[in-house]
Amino acid sequence: MALREARRDDVRWIVEMLIDDDLGKTREDLSDLAPYLAGFDAIAADPFNTQYVWEENGELLGCLQLTVIPGIGQRGLWRGQVEGVRVKGTRRGSGIGRKMMQAVMAIAREKGCAQMQLTTNKARKDAQRFYGQLGFEMSHEGMKAKL
Amino acid sequence: MALREARRDDVRWIVEMLIDDDLGKTREDLSDLAPYLAGFDAIAADPFNTQYVWEENGELLGCLQLTVIPGIGQRGLWRGQVEGVRVKGTRRGSGIGRKMMQAVMAIAREKGCAQMQLTTNKARKDAQRFYGQLGFEMSHEGMKAKL
Repeated sequence: MALREARRDDVRWIVEMLIDDDLGKTREDLSDLAPYLAGFDAIAADPFNTQYVWEENGELLGCLQLTVIPGIGQRGLWRGQVEGVRVKGTRRGSGIGRKMMQAVMAIAREKGCAQMQLTTNKARKDAQRFYGQLGFEMSHEGMKAKL
Repeated sequence: MALREARRDDVRWIVEMLIDDDLGKTREDLSDLAPYLAGFDAIAADPFNTQYVWEENGELLGCLQLTVIPGIGQRGLWRGQVEGVRVKGTRRGSGIGRKMMQAVMAIAREKGCAQMQLTTNKARKDAQRFYGQLGFEMSHEGMKAKL
């Protein structure tokens, strides 16, 4: 079992994971894969972004995106940011999410990050408990605006 | 007046802005500029990150960093994320922050982003009101962990 970089032919599966979610099912549309593939290609072309999947015995069980954000503040602190963290519905609660997050936090450290960060919808109380157990503090408001 | 890309010789001024802040003053150290310059160089080398300053009549009055984050979810939604938003202490409340944010949101749109996002420390109530007036909703928890 391991976190590995996603390949282009993992994209359909990744979108299925994003749909298998109370919030995700309202905002995804698998009838046209093109915008998802374009998103993957942009990630793959940027050394500061990586899409990962968690694979066990040839089966995909989880996914997340890591963005490395260089910065000036806090003496040149680099941040590792995760987005789209999902574990396959039938395998939730089995520790995959924790192993996947620990693996990506180790990768972020290797890439030079001294802080990990994420935002999670205020409705996702289970997620907030989960990240709390991994050492994340709910210190900030996460604010979003449509453009 | 305009938002322009920061130059390497703006970095000392940017750090002075980060220090001129209740939270910033505890975590910056201007006695050694090297880690800040390294942060600037990493930003400058990454096409997905840009450090901006707000200049009026040759005077620097504000700064912020924009990170463009490509993604797969939400039909390949790209996000624009801002960090380190500051306005010179003597000029706060004069509308510079609003003009600066509107300018960077227009830039983010041009770069392909359909969502703007940021996190702000829960203690920064004024900041939360300010971003609310710009259309940001406090929909998410912002969680951080040291690495």
